Amino acid sequence: MFITFEGPEGGGKTTQINLLAVYLQECGYRVLATREPGGTRIGDQIRACLHDVNNKEMVPQTELLLYSASRAQLVHEVIRPALAAGILVLCDRFYDSTLAYQGYGRGLDLSQLRQITAFATAGLKPDLTLLFDIDVESGLTRRTVGGEEMNRLDLEALTFHQWVRHGFHALAAAEPTRWALIDAGRDPQLVQNDVRRLVMERLQL
Amino acid sequence: MFITFEGPEGGGKTTQINLLAVYLQECGYRVLATREPGGTRIGDQIRACLHDVNNKEMVPQTELLLYSASRAQLVHEVIRPALAAGILVLCDRFYDSTLAYQGYGRGLDLSQLRQITAFATAGLKPDLTLLFDIDVESGLTRRTVGGEEMNRLDLEALTFHQWVRHGFHALAAAEPTRWALIDAGRDPQLVQNDVRRLVMERLQL
Repeated sequence: MFITFEGPEGGGKTTQINLLAVYLQECGYRVLATREPGGTRIGDQIRACLHDVNNKEMVPQTELLLYSASRAQLVHEVIRPALAAGILVLCDRFYDSTLAYQGYGRGLDLSQLRQITAFATAGLKPDLTLLFDIDVESGLTRRTVGGEEMNRLDLEALTFHQWVRHGFHALAAAEPTRWALIDAGRDPQLVQNDVRRLVMERLQL
Repeated sequence: MFITFEGPEGGGKTTQINLLAVYLQECGYRVLATREPGGTRIGDQIRACLHDVNNKEMVPQTELLLYSASRAQLVHEVIRPALAAGILVLCDRFYDSTLAYQGYGRGLDLSQLRQITAFATAGLKPDLTLLFDIDVESGLTRRTVGGEEMNRLDLEALTFHQWVRHGFHALAAAEPTRWALIDAGRDPQLVQNDVRRLVMERLQL
């Protein structure tokens, strides 16, 4: 089973994925937790280029293609082999982030993005996608206060992040059986309880 | 006008483009010579990843998307603004290399490659493409003997390079008014004479 964690900045995805991975291992599952962009040696080189705050001149098309390149490497080198071996794969962001950030956020054509995504992933889709929903101001404040490193995308205008959040809602609404929406503005342990319940329900189907 | 230089390894494209740039400047043209992958600050970061001989595990999809990312940045940051300013742009490799290397060479689907290329270039096409044709063995020997740095693609099997050359021939045959084929196995000054003649004919149309 392949589960992805999506949502705007500051929704606590990374904390939640780590807590879930430990929990699932304690339940006896073999688990692989990974992230985008990155998750492979080559993907980490691409991630460095994408997150470098000096790369201000990067055009939206380049950004989209770099995310897709990192994704292609992750899918072929890590995710598909793990799934084939019966391992449960958890991924911090996947192609829905591309549709939300580069499509809804930057205004690139969604049908072109879907074509490129299908090429990069060879058609792989998550079985379950958890949307960690948080209002944009709270999310960005959390990231700043939490002392996390600010990357190039964090520095975008507020309206960009509002479009991204709208994009995630639209994507979830279009595929309600794949997506589950989680209120990420609450105490992390309450959020984790929801995450575990949703994942265990899906695993027992 | 936008002129691209294509062909297998060791065809002397870089020498020829430099000689042509000097000649055209002496003729009074404003000329910009650039190359792929690279040609921009961000493109050079991508080029380093593509040419790193340690990146042996790179899958064909990742490779294609990285070339396309470098291309998108070059088109939007350099080529389109230069063409809009009336500058003659010469480019050492462009999307035909993607079709030849990743399509014909690696066997990726050509129609998907064309879709991704159209996205990266926003539809920009060369006005003239010069194919520096040389048989595969001679080309690779020239690169080795010439002391040029061998990159990740040079180390591919001979059959790969033969498919690539076949790909260039097929692309040229499909668009004969855009392409001109040049026998690159001859003395570089004879090759340059052909290059100048072909380019000046096109400039005077």
